[in-house]
Amino acid sequence: MGNSLGKIFTITSFGESHGRCVGVTIDGCPAGLPLTEADIQKEVDKRRPGASVASTSRAEEDKVEILSGIFNGYTTGAPICLLAWNKDVDSSEYERIRFLPRPGHADYPAFIRYGGFNDFRGGGRFSGRITATFVMAGAVAKKLLSRIGVEVLAYTIEIGGVKAQTKGFDEIRASVETNPLRCGDLKAVEEMTGVIEKARKEGDSVGGVIEGLAINLPVGLGEPVFDTLEGDLAKAIFAIPAIKGVEFGSGFSAAGKRGSENNDPFTLKNDRIVTLSNNAGGILGGISTGMPIVLRVVVKPTSSIGKRQETVDIKNMQDASLEIRGRHDACIVPRAVPVVESMMAVTLCDFAIRAGLVPEVIK
Amino acid sequence: MGNSLGKIFTITSFGESHGRCVGVTIDGCPAGLPLTEADIQKEVDKRRPGASVASTSRAEEDKVEILSGIFNGYTTGAPICLLAWNKDVDSSEYERIRFLPRPGHADYPAFIRYGGFNDFRGGGRFSGRITATFVMAGAVAKKLLSRIGVEVLAYTIEIGGVKAQTKGFDEIRASVETNPLRCGDLKAVEEMTGVIEKARKEGDSVGGVIEGLAINLPVGLGEPVFDTLEGDLAKAIFAIPAIKGVEFGSGFSAAGKRGSENNDPFTLKNDRIVTLSNNAGGILGGISTGMPIVLRVVVKPTSSIGKRQETVDIKNMQDASLEIRGRHDACIVPRAVPVVESMMAVTLCDFAIRAGLVPEVIK
Amino acid sequence: MGNSLGKIFTITSFGESHGRCVGVTIDGCPAGLPLTEADIQKEVDKRRPGASVASTSRAEEDKVEILSGIFNGYTTGAPICLLAWNKDVDSSEYERIRFLPRPGHADYPAFIRYGGFNDFRGGGRFSGRITATFVMAGAVAKKLLSRIGVEVLAYTIEIGGVKAQTKGFDEIRASVETNPLRCGDLKAVEEMTGVIEKARKEGDSVGGVIEGLAINLPVGLGEPVFDTLEGDLAKAIFAIPAIKGVEFGSGFSAAGKRGSENNDPFTLKNDRIVTLSNNAGGILGGISTGMPIVLRVVVKPTSSIGKRQETVDIKNMQDASLEIRGRHDACIVPRAVPVVESMMAVTLCDFAIRAGLVPEVIK
Amino acid sequence: MGNSLGKIFTITSFGESHGRCVGVTIDGCPAGLPLTEADIQKEVDKRRPGASVASTSRAEEDKVEILSGIFNGYTTGAPICLLAWNKDVDSSEYERIRFLPRPGHADYPAFIRYGGFNDFRGGGRFSGRITATFVMAGAVAKKLLSRIGVEVLAYTIEIGGVKAQTKGFDEIRASVETNPLRCGDLKAVEEMTGVIEKARKEGDSVGGVIEGLAINLPVGLGEPVFDTLEGDLAKAIFAIPAIKGVEFGSGFSAAGKRGSENNDPFTLKNDRIVTLSNNAGGILGGISTGMPIVLRVVVKPTSSIGKRQETVDIKNMQDASLEIRGRHDACIVPRAVPVVESMMAVTLCDFAIRAGLVPEVIK
Repeated sequence: MGNSLGKIFTITSFGESHGRCVGVTIDGCPAGLPLTEADIQKEVDKRRPGASVASTSRAEEDKVEILSGIFNGYTTGAPICLLAWNKDVDSSEYERIRFLPRPGHADYPAFIRYGGFNDFRGGGRFSGRITATFVMAGAVAKKLLSRIGVEVLAYTIEIGGVKAQTKGFDEIRASVETNPLRCGDLKAVEEMTGVIEKARKEGDSVGGVIEGLAINLPVGLGEPVFDTLEGDLAKAIFAIPAIKGVEFGSGFSAAGKRGSENNDPFTLKNDRIVTLSNNAGGILGGISTGMPIVLRVVVKPTSSIGKRQETVDIKNMQDASLEIRGRHDACIVPRAVPVVESMMAVTLCDFAIRAGLVPEVIK
Repeated sequence: MGNSLGKIFTITSFGESHGRCVGVTIDGCPAGLPLTEADIQKEVDKRRPGASVASTSRAEEDKVEILSGIFNGYTTGAPICLLAWNKDVDSSEYERIRFLPRPGHADYPAFIRYGGFNDFRGGGRFSGRITATFVMAGAVAKKLLSRIGVEVLAYTIEIGGVKAQTKGFDEIRASVETNPLRCGDLKAVEEMTGVIEKARKEGDSVGGVIEGLAINLPVGLGEPVFDTLEGDLAKAIFAIPAIKGVEFGSGFSAAGKRGSENNDPFTLKNDRIVTLSNNAGGILGGISTGMPIVLRVVVKPTSSIGKRQETVDIKNMQDASLEIRGRHDACIVPRAVPVVESMMAVTLCDFAIRAGLVPEVIK
Repeated sequence: MGNSLGKIFTITSFGESHGRCVGVTIDGCPAGLPLTEADIQKEVDKRRPGASVASTSRAEEDKVEILSGIFNGYTTGAPICLLAWNKDVDSSEYERIRFLPRPGHADYPAFIRYGGFNDFRGGGRFSGRITATFVMAGAVAKKLLSRIGVEVLAYTIEIGGVKAQTKGFDEIRASVETNPLRCGDLKAVEEMTGVIEKARKEGDSVGGVIEGLAINLPVGLGEPVFDTLEGDLAKAIFAIPAIKGVEFGSGFSAAGKRGSENNDPFTLKNDRIVTLSNNAGGILGGISTGMPIVLRVVVKPTSSIGKRQETVDIKNMQDASLEIRGRHDACIVPRAVPVVESMMAVTLCDFAIRAGLVPEVIK
Repeated sequence: MGNSLGKIFTITSFGESHGRCVGVTIDGCPAGLPLTEADIQKEVDKRRPGASVASTSRAEEDKVEILSGIFNGYTTGAPICLLAWNKDVDSSEYERIRFLPRPGHADYPAFIRYGGFNDFRGGGRFSGRITATFVMAGAVAKKLLSRIGVEVLAYTIEIGGVKAQTKGFDEIRASVETNPLRCGDLKAVEEMTGVIEKARKEGDSVGGVIEGLAINLPVGLGEPVFDTLEGDLAKAIFAIPAIKGVEFGSGFSAAGKRGSENNDPFTLKNDRIVTLSNNAGGILGGISTGMPIVLRVVVKPTSSIGKRQETVDIKNMQDASLEIRGRHDACIVPRAVPVVESMMAVTLCDFAIRAGLVPEVIK
């Protein structure tokens, strides 16, 4: 259980890293949305390892196939099943370390939770590869959201201690896909690249921070007291491996602010009510204010590192040490960017449909 | 919609700040748990304003009544309805500012979301008072968790920029209820008190950070990929007004760490597998590792301040300013502490029941 | 668990027959619906025992109170909590037969399911009295449905083997509340009354059949393949004690028909597509066709009878016999009529809201 | 939406009759259950058209593939995706009648519900072919239930007005797969065959009744007041096309019975509490009594008939007539039998897991 998300626009993820495929079923997508495999492929390609300094060498083609729910180029209202077959799989390394849980990975609690029956190869269900299914669903959600003018954008703002300078939405959007780190500040990219390269050479890894924005969201989305925008966005985002914190608007920095500083004063601008600042991150009382949704998530440094680490041999129950072979992402932040964007889109899409903003049939 | 939380142990909150009552229905509580009104009252009393420097003067008795689900002192397996009648209600101030949305409050998006029909008095459903219903549910959850040895504890670690020193679990537990700020570091309490007092005198407010721990949780709780421990804990906690960020383990500080630093090495201790550090906050892959769950949440500075603020008259659609009269909490962090604890307990209880750790009938 | 129903318009029932109260929380009701206690009382009064030959002597006032969710006479979008306090309670008889499960009642499986902790007095959660909470919710649902022109009507069509003649919708609506058996055929009422009276005198009881109609439902409600109109209506109706079968349109009689007979031919009538017959009961493929929804439910003969019955003493695990004292409904069919109507309304309301037919704010 | 069923053991169906495939994802299946494609194929083969007089000529191989969730022959606790590719597809007939909704089919309401975007070929999502996905899920559920000794069995008891004689469980089990009508009474089979053959020759069809049994279910399954055994079984079964009624135990015949007749007296048998009759169909108060679950469902006569029928041309909005070409099942009752069995198994499996009868890891 636990592999479905969303109340009306509901996604169900399936597949394993080294199994036959990874896929997702989307139920509750309105009929009449034009949708092709290319629409989804375009998004999925973003999380593939590229020429990027940050990436692994696993060369999955990740070709998305539509198995159901589309007819004559339009969504039908039936569940949409999307899938990519696994091809470039070598599981020998995982057989070797099967009983040596890797620090920072889910190996140990998964072994206990599933009684050793879980597919451990490549991390199985806990692999970053599973996030390809999030991006598939996100591609559909983003297309739906675009129908009501909502745009979601995520980008790197910090890697290995190097912080990007704040930029405007248009500038970030223009630059995010032009550099392998998906960062809006091209100057910072250089420095970040150096930090990643250094970590890699030392058999180590670095983490970072991703910021996510959603603009043009109407006032009034969110279903408090429990189905808040913050709560449901956070829940969706915590499904991404390596995310260990989520904050909205001024976030943790609010702890050091005065109320008079942190409150966002209301004013009129072109007959619309706006706030002069956006410390609320576009959300008050769990409901959208009409200002941009702003959130930040922390991505821990990649758990797979080249250095020897202490662990326990869970078969023989004795202390052991472990060296993970092969190449690994020294920094997964850039590849997590489209995934954060996708989970934001999926969540907002569900709220928009619940609020009646997207009709059951799109004309 | 959106007023229910939990899959098997499900709570449904109802009531308004200035309506007849606030209450909660708990469905899915196993039969056979001894439960009295005193058990719940004890927890609810914690979030009442006390002699604390941080608190308002609203003098609600908040006497909890059990309306259903208990028979001869034991839970019956039927829904438990708990309720506190509202008594000390003066809504005149809210009538006055009805069309002047308070910065930092939900007034404006709620007005749009509910078409002006929402009960705005005292913030209605968006009042901190609603969290009394969370604490009622939390009291039941905590009692259930204690049956399997799980203990949840929350406490203040930062207020107005003043950070508490790290203390051990036992020391914190011993001191948290001995001081009005619910902080484990009594020396910091003094300084925090000064900061709050200063803010109050200036008609302003301060925020802070609360840490939450859960100990003795077995390995293997959590239902990834979407129903992760982090995700469901975060969602539950974001239901608390004023929370704008949640992090687990090393949290946002992981952005600046190396993988070799942030990974928690496994080792054996008394034949149990433990980690030498706990940067994961007790959760890997969305599943409990058996180490303490550690999370931190940021509480924004109280939105209700004495200073005059800019807003918009939404009736006449013109800029306006607003002064909120009456006394308000200059810092709600201490009162949020038992609420954080409650939402953690409610979430963990649901996971524990789903995992079959709590039987359908308790003997 | 299991005490909530509905996906967006969600009701949660609580309370026990001899506890403090019975009540229901309705989440997901749009804001802006005018609603008073009288609106609900009017419906709840229908299931009270009256001067009817069919009814018990328990004289509950069943006065409905609104605890939350209404402000200035309108729904606010917040959860609506409705409640009736229990007053006329005498539990002595139930103490006497506590360990003698009554045949036809839930006593035995409930004892096992809840480990003997369930409130057995008056049947507890399994009492017909709990259906008062269904009718409370149904009153709100019916009012919402009336906003989109949908009308739901249930009525008795068979009691103790006596079948009513088929009548038109208007005739039934006009007569159903004019006779204690809620039957549209006044001639049959006489005969039915005789059958009930005879059963009562013999310490026995009779069952019957209720028909339910919903008219003016638009084409296209229903969410197949699993959330079908038939499926969700049936599930809701089976929550009513004593219902043991549900059929739609030609129902079980279709087993003996040819396809050419049972298929409903389409034709145009005033530029609308209609069917010449309605063997489908207004539902094809789980979706409304625009024709009236027609269903029938069987109500088993009242389980509480005066005659001595065989049972088992579950305390001492030995065969025993049992005589249930006091007066009991010799036929509960008429009192179940408003409950069937209510569960239909609650279900259709949820579908209508999901389909976007009822806006989030009603103007 | 609406394509998922179950709370913990959750199935999500996808695919279309003439699309690429039909499939199902099962989430919430415990780890450690041995499961092969052959286990599932065996069940799916049962609903294939055979040499049976009752069946169509579509020659789908229906070869089941496991896409995920199984590793080394055991379930892993991850979602199980099962799928059969469509091969024998000829959609030309459906193009021809695209705007001529077939009486008795979902064509018309589906056209409205999905704005004409639905995949109409072969009935799309409304095809009987979709029930192959129910049987795939049912195969897994049956295997799980067998672990706790629960057995589910469905069989034909009436076709075209011919009723089978009542037989014992063992006799039915032995004979149900020995005859193409899946009936326990071999003498009735002959007569039923004649009735079907006659209908077919006349370009017509017949319906019937299927009975379903579940034995060895423990006392206490079911989550009233809304998640009753009857309600959830009925909901699951109404997902099967052509089912128009469900009854339990004495069902509709209870309308003509006295309470003293219909109540099932309790007695002791080998120190277990049983009832002397089973008019309750194994369910009281929505909870299992430990007696066999007994239900009956009516299958309407196949909607696809050879005779010319009246309909409406929905493109030109004018009356029209329609002759459906090709061969069709003159009676789908026998093919619906394994589907009823499957939906029963899926539902009971979900209840059993919720009740903690099946552990999270099977040893």
